[in-house]
Amino acid sequence: MSELVSTALDPGLAGAAAAAEGTIEALRSLLLLIVGAKAGEEIARRLGQPGVVGEVAGGFAVGPHALGLASLDPVVFVFAELGVVILLFSVGLEVRTDDLLAVRRAALLVALLAMALPLALGAALVSWTGEAPGPAVFAGLALAATSIGITSRVLAEMGVLDRPFSRVILGAAIVDDVAALLLIGIVSGAARGALSLESALAVVVSALGLLGLGLAVARRARGLPREVFTWPLFADTPLVPAFLLMLAGALVAAQVGLAAIIGAFVAGLILAETEAREELAEEMRPLGLVFAPFFFAVTGAQVDLGALVNPALALLAIGLAVVGVVTKLAGGYLGARGLGRWGALAVGAGMVPRGEVGIVVANLGITLGLLTGDLFSAVVIAVVLTTVAAPLLLARVVPRAMREA
Amino acid sequence: MSELVSTALDPGLAGAAAAAEGTIEALRSLLLLIVGAKAGEEIARRLGQPGVVGEVAGGFAVGPHALGLASLDPVVFVFAELGVVILLFSVGLEVRTDDLLAVRRAALLVALLAMALPLALGAALVSWTGEAPGPAVFAGLALAATSIGITSRVLAEMGVLDRPFSRVILGAAIVDDVAALLLIGIVSGAARGALSLESALAVVVSALGLLGLGLAVARRARGLPREVFTWPLFADTPLVPAFLLMLAGALVAAQVGLAAIIGAFVAGLILAETEAREELAEEMRPLGLVFAPFFFAVTGAQVDLGALVNPALALLAIGLAVVGVVTKLAGGYLGARGLGRWGALAVGAGMVPRGEVGIVVANLGITLGLLTGDLFSAVVIAVVLTTVAAPLLLARVVPRAMREA
Repeated sequence: MSELVSTALDPGLAGAAAAAEGTIEALRSLLLLIVGAKAGEEIARRLGQPGVVGEVAGGFAVGPHALGLASLDPVVFVFAELGVVILLFSVGLEVRTDDLLAVRRAALLVALLAMALPLALGAALVSWTGEAPGPAVFAGLALAATSIGITSRVLAEMGVLDRPFSRVILGAAIVDDVAALLLIGIVSGAARGALSLESALAVVVSALGLLGLGLAVARRARGLPREVFTWPLFADTPLVPAFLLMLAGALVAAQVGLAAIIGAFVAGLILAETEAREELAEEMRPLGLVFAPFFFAVTGAQVDLGALVNPALALLAIGLAVVGVVTKLAGGYLGARGLGRWGALAVGAGMVPRGEVGIVVANLGITLGLLTGDLFSAVVIAVVLTTVAAPLLLARVVPRAMREA
Repeated sequence: MSELVSTALDPGLAGAAAAAEGTIEALRSLLLLIVGAKAGEEIARRLGQPGVVGEVAGGFAVGPHALGLASLDPVVFVFAELGVVILLFSVGLEVRTDDLLAVRRAALLVALLAMALPLALGAALVSWTGEAPGPAVFAGLALAATSIGITSRVLAEMGVLDRPFSRVILGAAIVDDVAALLLIGIVSGAARGALSLESALAVVVSALGLLGLGLAVARRARGLPREVFTWPLFADTPLVPAFLLMLAGALVAAQVGLAAIIGAFVAGLILAETEAREELAEEMRPLGLVFAPFFFAVTGAQVDLGALVNPALALLAIGLAVVGVVTKLAGGYLGARGLGRWGALAVGAGMVPRGEVGIVVANLGITLGLLTGDLFSAVVIAVVLTTVAAPLLLARVVPRAMREA
């Protein structure tokens, strides 16, 4: 019987005992990451720079490639992901679906140009260094995707989420995510020698179906009374039901291959149409203040500047980063010219960060055998450089776009 | 060079790629746990029972020993711990240090009686079944400690945190934690055949020193202006500095061997004296709503009722649970008679849950070789039963104590 009981009870409890130690370790890493992020933000802002650059730098400083105070165990990545999910959900709460649909043409054009240009020119640059077409295309692909987290934070901090250029950026980020899904499916299929355009299209159709459904629900949710969320006895306020909807949206999106943050954003769009909107925005504020910094700090903590000591690698990385920045700026400028010169540049600047999306694509390239040591490192460093460059660009371009409007 | 780069970059990035999959898995478990907890709470409250019982039951339902929907990976334990840390910090924000110190005699007496009685009678019961004195004493020890999480939640839900019996419970829980530290030190030392009363006392002295320091800081913090927390540019409100202080308090407490939640509670006491108190309580509310349920759901998810199919084991477990409940009620009743009959019983009921503290002690017993399969299982089931019984007892006793007052 003892065996029966111990097989029935031990796994969980042995886990609990081990977890008690590990839990304190994890909380220590989380505290150090947020302390680093906030110290970095304080310094950046006192220097007149965007706070988020300081958060990334602070995360780098306490992370394993610098002071080594905080370790990047899996728990830390969950907090980072939850942080960016909360951030995009909160951004969704501030956006009206109709405003987003109103800029759909510009968003579509921007997304396509701002993916095609870095894909083509990135691949061309890598080809020119002597790489085969497969790796070259994959490196271009890592530069084509956009990570909207950092841009969202900068736009929210500046209080410009309701401006047309912000809506174009958000709309383009959605299109971008779907297009990346299609491109990654095609390129991985081709690399495996088993390209099935049908299956790649099936993935995209289901992703588009989900997005369409989300937007349709958002339009139907207009004016839903607060009581729709507060009828359960556990819900004195709309917060807990909304939090569940946010997590569910993130997970469903991840299930069909989209980024989890796109699902959280759409959940936010839906709730933004209801009468619970303002109360929810107020209740989500503390969650965003505490969690979003983990995302930026963990982004910084993954950076290893040591790789830059190799001159050839450093040159390639910087070349890719320059191509990455210039092509996104050009894509935004050409695709959103209706917003005026600086407005269109603001759109391009908003599309510059590649962040975790670029890193995931690069890792996929390793798995497929298309990116090897040096090229992989150069791509990752370029991704990081674009991510840090974006808020600095936005800080210069957005005020001009505001004056122009 | 490729090797240089890959050793420098790969660990973090390979981790990031693996974490991307694991992160979505972890978010799924977290969503299922909170959905289970909230569904359970809804059912419990519609049946007129305390919501927290439903949260524990809901966690059990989705957990590995029932439906198996949510897995208990380390990430889940970190969210549970953060949940109870946030809960106790928020409770601390509602308590005045002077009110706590005013009941110190009753708290001390309650803590000592409510530990001595279950230790003695629990050990006696286990001895009577034929166990050796070592295991018997350790089983009693697992029944002696108190877990304040569930009681805090029930008292906060009832809006009675400012009543004298609540203050006695909170004060006694602090004394209890220090006394448990001393007892565990002595018993483990004796079990290892290396009992050093000096080292056990040294641990307790440093814990008491830390607590004394915390309380002294709390009294000096009286009337500190809000600006003390909002001078950094990153702090538009006191939330982020307070959150850092909360985590730091929890970690420092864990460092000296106290429960992390005691440190978070003291951090709350300190901030409760400042002018930021009300604003902070308001900002912490959404964090508590979202995180505290993880603690209760994870408590439930660790329960395995399957062990109860063995009649001898079930009988011993129920016997220990009855002893555990009766001795805590008696300890509270005898120790806090000045609060009136029902007030004193409310104190006893508040000390009933053993929760994660009892489980940690039981696991220590396994490590030391003092608790074996059956006895360990019986102790753990008894711990769980006391934890579920406490809110049901409080729901009956507290209203009578309020009428009596």
